[in-house]
Amino acid sequence: MRDLAPALDDLGAFAADAARRAGQASLNWFRVPLTIDTKADESPVTVADRTVESLLRAEIVERFPDHGIFGEEHGRERMEAEHVWVIDPIDGTRSFITGWPLYGTLLAVLRQDKPVIGVIEMPALGERWVGIAGQPTRFQGAPCRTSDCRELAAASLYTTSPDAFDPAGWAVFDRVSRQVRTRRFGGDCYSYGLLAAGHIDLVIEAGLQPYDYLSLVPILEGAGGAIADWQGRPLTTQSDGRVVAAASPELLAAALAAIAAAQEG
Amino acid sequence: MRDLAPALDDLGAFAADAARRAGQASLNWFRVPLTIDTKADESPVTVADRTVESLLRAEIVERFPDHGIFGEEHGRERMEAEHVWVIDPIDGTRSFITGWPLYGTLLAVLRQDKPVIGVIEMPALGERWVGIAGQPTRFQGAPCRTSDCRELAAASLYTTSPDAFDPAGWAVFDRVSRQVRTRRFGGDCYSYGLLAAGHIDLVIEAGLQPYDYLSLVPILEGAGGAIADWQGRPLTTQSDGRVVAAASPELLAAALAAIAAAQEG
Repeated sequence: MRDLAPALDDLGAFAADAARRAGQASLNWFRVPLTIDTKADESPVTVADRTVESLLRAEIVERFPDHGIFGEEHGRERMEAEHVWVIDPIDGTRSFITGWPLYGTLLAVLRQDKPVIGVIEMPALGERWVGIAGQPTRFQGAPCRTSDCRELAAASLYTTSPDAFDPAGWAVFDRVSRQVRTRRFGGDCYSYGLLAAGHIDLVIEAGLQPYDYLSLVPILEGAGGAIADWQGRPLTTQSDGRVVAAASPELLAAALAAIAAAQEG
Repeated sequence: MRDLAPALDDLGAFAADAARRAGQASLNWFRVPLTIDTKADESPVTVADRTVESLLRAEIVERFPDHGIFGEEHGRERMEAEHVWVIDPIDGTRSFITGWPLYGTLLAVLRQDKPVIGVIEMPALGERWVGIAGQPTRFQGAPCRTSDCRELAAASLYTTSPDAFDPAGWAVFDRVSRQVRTRRFGGDCYSYGLLAAGHIDLVIEAGLQPYDYLSLVPILEGAGGAIADWQGRPLTTQSDGRVVAAASPELLAAALAAIAAAQEG
């Protein structure tokens, strides 16, 4: 028998410290004039994204040389390893380059392809969520819980932007979101943090990448919430980028049913 | 001849202090379970909105008993006075009740119906903009400037939510916003602060109330920007709630021309 708990604790502590240091580094470029390059998918990228990821990769390779790494800016290496780190150095680059403080640094660890560690670091706010599989999620060091919301009609829903959806996806989102108590826009990864801390109830998005959503899984599940793709399947590196995260399994089921009905209608 | 400069400085200093104190008070109810009531216009309101406005009104009445007051929650009094204070105790109540830190406390002073003082206080962020007619706008105590953006194609544009527009207004916004470099959602009053500080270039909104926009006028104008209604008219208590704010008079003119073209098309 192998005792995994200490290993997970060690990984979680290292991930939280590394995310904090990386986030601090990002502030060197926040609200400073930057050259903005455009990637193949037309998303913006700056020296901040690239340098913050390089810092994280260097720390991970030094401490865990046999682990794999999958980063937004510098690609994949050792993806066959038992542990793979997933890095989004600046989640919300469009927020970052417009001086918006709700950008985050995201870090996940996959063990045999399953996310077991997740960190949401909000450098400009000084806020941090840490999720470790099988443990309560911590916000600012203390355990946090999702709300007890179980019904769409009572839910407050966030999504980052209508522009993240294709037309069919937007039609589905629009129909589902008419059934909730309130819908709001903006937020990137921060919405999922507020969901884990019990302040909002539901997030529905599309167009996400693995480095956008894998860190969210241990955070949401360790706080009592649930997260899946639009078909209700667990999120993996192979998911299609359409994500629904809810305060409770019951609310997730209700949202999935509403999505299915909207797709049929 | 009456020397108005000292009076404006005094008003500005008092407004900034009062907004800071009111914002601190709002934090007592932030991320705390609250009863949410619904107003006649279906917008939400809580004890926080009402109490923060009451605190501000009490301070203003004690210091300036002959001034008028126009507040979101507790109405209008002495509107015929030379000076009228305009209060939005919590701009972004939907942000506030979902634990979102980008809500603000807004305070304006009108002199003979013209906004001469404006304060954007962001209690959860500890950030503050103060505008005084004829003086440079201050962000965190230091003068701030808008960007030098003059062309739509180079502009980063924010608006709070598609849901704030009626269908015709959304069609206009959508057409205009396709001409900018990037469009983003979320923010309430904070967008105008980032505009004054040079981080974004353009804000186009609809459905605003006088207490949402009057404080923004001295802040934008004192930072080198420009703000008007969708027809290019100065904002007053009688405006229709459709607002465009830009980093420069040139960009405002370009946005107004694009709005006019979109309305005709």
